[in-house]
Amino acid sequence: MNSIVLLGAGNVAQHLYAAFLNQKSVEVIQCYNRKGIKLHKDQKADTITTDITNLKEADVYILAISDDAVEKVSSALPFMDRLVVHTSGSVPMKSIDNRNHPGVFYPLQTFSATKKVDFNKIPFCIEAERETDAVFLKKLASRLSQKVYDISSDQRNILHVAAVFVNNFTNYMFTIGNEICEENKVPFEILHPLIQETAKKIHEIEPDKAQTGPAVRNDFHTIERHLGILTNDLQKQLYETLTKAIQSKYGKEL
Amino acid sequence: MNSIVLLGAGNVAQHLYAAFLNQKSVEVIQCYNRKGIKLHKDQKADTITTDITNLKEADVYILAISDDAVEKVSSALPFMDRLVVHTSGSVPMKSIDNRNHPGVFYPLQTFSATKKVDFNKIPFCIEAERETDAVFLKKLASRLSQKVYDISSDQRNILHVAAVFVNNFTNYMFTIGNEICEENKVPFEILHPLIQETAKKIHEIEPDKAQTGPAVRNDFHTIERHLGILTNDLQKQLYETLTKAIQSKYGKEL
Ligand SMILES: NC(=O)c1ccc[n+]([C@@H]2O[C@H](COP(=O)([O-])OP(=O)(O)OC[C@H]3O[C@@H](n4cnc5c(N)ncnc54)[C@H](OP(=O)(O)O)[C@@H]3O)[C@@H](O)[C@H]2O)c1
Ligand SMILES: NC(=O)c1ccc[n+]([C@@H]2O[C@H](COP(=O)([O-])OP(=O)(O)OC[C@H]3O[C@@H](n4cnc5c(N)ncnc54)[C@H](OP(=O)(O)O)[C@@H]3O)[C@@H](O)[C@H]2O)c1
Repeated sequence: MNSIVLLGAGNVAQHLYAAFLNQKSVEVIQCYNRKGIKLHKDQKADTITTDITNLKEADVYILAISDDAVEKVSSALPFMDRLVVHTSGSVPMKSIDNRNHPGVFYPLQTFSATKKVDFNKIPFCIEAERETDAVFLKKLASRLSQKVYDISSDQRNILHVAAVFVNNFTNYMFTIGNEICEENKVPFEILHPLIQETAKKIHEIEPDKAQTGPAVRNDFHTIERHLGILTNDLQKQLYETLTKAIQSKYGKEL
Repeated sequence: MNSIVLLGAGNVAQHLYAAFLNQKSVEVIQCYNRKGIKLHKDQKADTITTDITNLKEADVYILAISDDAVEKVSSALPFMDRLVVHTSGSVPMKSIDNRNHPGVFYPLQTFSATKKVDFNKIPFCIEAERETDAVFLKKLASRLSQKVYDISSDQRNILHVAAVFVNNFTNYMFTIGNEICEENKVPFEILHPLIQETAKKIHEIEPDKAQTGPAVRNDFHTIERHLGILTNDLQKQLYETLTKAIQSKYGKEL
């Protein structure tokens, strides 16, 4: 049986708690957070503490807390030589105070409070200073998910930047699509199936091979017509910038 | 029983043929294409013609042919006063020669030759000059799909521009994510589940409410770090442009 102390009571802490609850070989023996919040309706009150100097001994301490609190909270831990990990995509492993053995246990997905999470296919990015800790963390992650990766802090940074493009900026493309539809009283939901298909395609074909549309076809006639339809300057400007970017990529390659 | 003559032998024609084959109340009585291509392994040879002057009488003639051929092929039809529709997202209905009754039967999805298509949830955008034709086309579309919409040529133009953002430009965001990963030897597949989740979210929450990331948080520290990580000028420039666009949108609204 592996024992865990979980710190934090936000989205990630709550989802991790629920996931570990289903694992027989793992027990979250204690939770710390400043407000004494229960992470789950089945959690017993005596497993919650608001006193960081009162933590039990465990195999691993998981800091599922805000990025900028990792350094401070890890420094406040009242013990040494134990395995302490954070769950962040962007905080370096070294931010964990070096009196303990640092590691990272990063589930690469967006979590929100309301939505249930199936960890099974969520990629876990694992890092640890000591090889034995890495082995332990990968075993722990593999109890929750089929997808477990050795990822260094540098690689995690790369993934984080790439995630800004495929998640944040993509969502922004959906926002513009929605705006264009709303401004013209066309239901955006007509585009929902196309959006799902666009995302699904990456499982079958590399995105640069899946590129379609007027930009990659160099279809100036359609591009001009689209620029004529767009009335919002920002939308127009982004259409031009992204069209040029696609053309410069495929123009060179063709 | 409704009778259809299908013109063209590309992606759309082939998928439509297969879909109509499963419908008892609809029959594709003849197919025309220049090369005499069979649209389906079960198609009988005597239902294929390469002679456009030899078309049978049918309830509707569906031109599933290249955008720029719609006008010409519709003018070459050897009859008048019949319902003739195209399947394009961007060609105006009026491009169909006015000796016949024009209409549009546009399935809003990306089709490729290899991939099987389930039409059931594909939105059909219907337009017709005559009300009776619109009713007929909507009934026909509803045999294939639950999602049938009355969409004017102007609205179809709007959808087409919006689709460039949510499909073409989104795919380009995936391409950049992939490039960043490849350049740094991190497997892009780690980001696949995040991409699926990003797309799925639009079913639950409007995209402008789902926006996350350093841009909308005004997290200058992370933005600077990301710009430092990106080595490719085009990637850097797009990161800056999209970050500013998001900030200007949410800066104003907050
Ligand atoms: N949400 C996601 O989609 C996601 C995905 C993967 C990884 N992560 C990472 O997981 C970590 C947690 O994220 P989250 O989304 O769960 O955040 P969250 O919902 O905002 O929760 C943050 C938690 O950190 C605690 N905290 C903040 N400052 C603290 C301090 N000085 N001392 C003690 N506790 C403190 C907060 O406690 P109080 O309520 O007392 O302030 C709260 O319980 C972050 O590193 C994040 O980058 C998040
Ligand atoms: N693919 C999609 O994702 C998609 C989705 C929705 C709507 N659409 C629309 O559906 C229509 C067909 O698209 P597609 O993807 O099926 O195209 P495609 O695979 O490129 O096939 C085009 C067909 O048009 C025929 N054609 C072209 N010029 C012709 C001419 N002058 N006379 C007779 N036939 C001619 C071609 O015949 P030859 O082989 O003899 O040249 C071919 O059979 C287009 O309007 C397109 O915008 C496409």
